[in-house]
Formats: sequence, structure tokens, C-alpha cells
Amino acid sequence: MTIKLIGFPYSGPTMRVIITLRELGLPYEFETPANFEVLKTEDFLANKNPFGKIPVLFDGDFRIIESRSICRYLASKYQGKNNNTILIPNDVHKAGLVDQFVSFEIFYYDPPAFKFVSQEVFAEKFWNKNPDPEIIKQGREELIKVLDIYEKLLEGKEYLNGEFSLADIYHSPYTHYVYGVAKHSELWDSRPNVKNWWNRLRNREAVKKTLEEIP
Amino acid sequence: MTIKLIGFPYSGPTMRVIITLRELGLPYEFETPANFEVLKTEDFLANKNPFGKIPVLFDGDFRIIESRSICRYLASKYQGKNNNTILIPNDVHKAGLVDQFVSFEIFYYDPPAFKFVSQEVFAEKFWNKNPDPEIIKQGREELIKVLDIYEKLLEGKEYLNGEFSLADIYHSPYTHYVYGVAKHSELWDSRPNVKNWWNRLRNREAVKKTLEEIP
Repeated sequence: MTIKLIGFPYSGPTMRVIITLRELGLPYEFETPANFEVLKTEDFLANKNPFGKIPVLFDGDFRIIESRSICRYLASKYQGKNNNTILIPNDVHKAGLVDQFVSFEIFYYDPPAFKFVSQEVFAEKFWNKNPDPEIIKQGREELIKVLDIYEKLLEGKEYLNGEFSLADIYHSPYTHYVYGVAKHSELWDSRPNVKNWWNRLRNREAVKKTLEEIP
Repeated sequence: MTIKLIGFPYSGPTMRVIITLRELGLPYEFETPANFEVLKTEDFLANKNPFGKIPVLFDGDFRIIESRSICRYLASKYQGKNNNTILIPNDVHKAGLVDQFVSFEIFYYDPPAFKFVSQEVFAEKFWNKNPDPEIIKQGREELIKVLDIYEKLLEGKEYLNGEFSLADIYHSPYTHYVYGVAKHSELWDSRPNVKNWWNRLRNREAVKKTLEEIP
């Protein structure tokens, strides 16, 4: 069955899916819409995503949207088939704690990280706007609190939940943008556990390759 | 093993967990912190939740936080044990689509619903603030777009994914607050599929009982 992914290579949600596909050793076709307007066409809304967003994944005839749901689906269906990488542990307690880190990412980590990304990476490039220093300041204050908590949670661990998991993948795109593109590496590097985690994560083959391919 | 839930009965996230426990037929102990300040104490941050939030669930010695992660954990571990209710389908494609609706709830449905809840339910009660009509207006505009999409997605279905699932539970608390407490029932009632879905959902024993118990 052919896996086809529709997305933009610089989109954080798209990157999440690409990293997951690579970690699982799954071949896939990649399609990039010609522009943003395509996402609002009747055809796209009816047959791809009613919310007018990417990524969209087709696994044969099966269609699924929303990056984290796509990644979870791929792991649930394919992990252990093409290689030994396990992204969702079989143990129900470990899986629960992976999911807990997914929730931290969604509600605590991504929102402040996206304040940097929106202002310092996307504002000029896509929206023809100047960065808003007030939003960046807020993002910094919020992210510092979250990274202080992560520093404790990562004590003695290689990855967020000990073993590598979906939760680490989900954190990768915006961490890369804030750390490497918006040049706030000191936020991670000044916290030894957080620094080691991010270095370990970004040097995984699937993560590294995906981040290097951002146009 | 005793299940202990720490939360506030009027908190949407706490309600999600209570409904899940009841749907699965699981007995539990419920503990309500004396006030909001408790959540910021050293003890709570170190031993309950480093982000200073509720709900927190203990299943024996196993601790898990974040409402949606707690509910998923409970379903993964206990569904089918005390009754026949299945909240996460065994089929990997159906489970993927349940998860997709969970994502819709998190990113599209809850944010505008919470604009109503924060302004019309919580602002005066908890924060001693007047409702901001501009935020309510935004919430209404955003929620209308989402409910129009839901109306199509619910065509011919009893619940969001056809069969009742975790996704329906997650939508319940804030729907109740906007529909019943903030009195915007017309947003649901003017869309037949959405109206039937919410009527079916709020009349389930576990949902009904939980919503009736809000102080």
C-alpha cells in the first residue's frame, strides 16, 4: 500500500510526520501544494481536509489528518515491522507517560515556542509583518518556566520518557526553529539535561535529515 | 488497586476524567484541593504535578496528569473489564480517526468554546473580571465555522466517529458550559446533526450525572 503525504517541508506539523515515517523505515510519496490558496479550494476542503490545513496522509485509501494523529496512527500500525524502533511502548503505564509528554508538548512547550517561531521565523517570510518584540518576550518568559521543569523531568534520562518515543519527535520541529533558526540556543544549552536531550534528538538520523531538508 | 482523582468538580479537564471513569464502570476516590494556592505549593509541584494543575490521577502508585492522557490511559488499561464500553476502538484505522477527532477538539473546538467559558462562566466567578464582549464575539465567529464542519462530519452518525468514543467525552465539558450555562444552545440546536449528537451525548448516564453534579 502506498503512503502519500501532503504537506510543506518547512511546516512543523509536516516535519513531525516525515520524522515519524523515517524513524519507522516507511517509504512514502511526498506532495507539496502549489500554494496556500490550494488549501482553501472546494476540492481540498471536500477531499483532503475540511479545516483547510496540512499535513494530510493517505495510506492507500485511508485518509487521516492532524500531524499528531497521523504519527500515532503510523506508529500503532507499523512500528516494529520495518525496523526495531518503538515509538509507543507496549506497556500501558509507559504509553500513558509518553502521552503525558505529548500533552506537555501541546499545551506548555509548543505555545511559547510558536511565539518565537511565528515572530522570528514566519512573520517576515510568510506574512510580511515585522516581529512583535512583546510576543517574543512573552514566549521567552513562558518557555524558560517550561524548560526549568523539563530540566528536572529529564534528570537521568536519555529521552523525555526514558526511551525514545513519539513525544520526542513531536518536540523536534519547533525546538529546531527556536534553537537553530531563531538562534535562542542558550535557552537549551544553559540546562545540561535539556541540552543533552536536544543534542541526542537532533542527531538521530531521521530527525537530522528532516531538519537539514528545510528549504 | 485504588484509583484516586484530584481535581475540581467544575473544571472541564476534571469532568473529562470523571466521565471516563464512569463510562468504564471504575470506582474511584475523589479529592478536591482546598483552594487554588495548594496547586502552587512545593509539595504539590514535587509530588502531584510540576505544572501546578489539576487533574492528577493515582492508580495505586502510578501517577498520571493531563486530562486527555489520563482518560486514554484509563481506557487503554481498563476498557472492557467492568462493562462493554469501548472508548478506543481496537481497529487501528478507527482508533486513528478517534484520535483525529481528539485533535479537532484540542485545536479547533475547545479554543473558541473556552472563549465563551472564560468570559461568560469563569471571568466573574473566579477572576473578578467583567466578560470581554470582543473575546465572546471572536469565540462565536470561530465556533460557528467549526460547528458547520462538524455538521457535515456528523452526517449519518450517532457520535463523532460513528461509535461512542473518547473523542465525544472530551467535547462534553465545554459544550455543556457554552450550551447550557452560557446559554448559547442555538449554536448547536440550529444544526440538526450537531444537535442530535449533543442530545445523545449529554443524555448518557455518565455524562448526565457528571454535568448535574457541577456545583
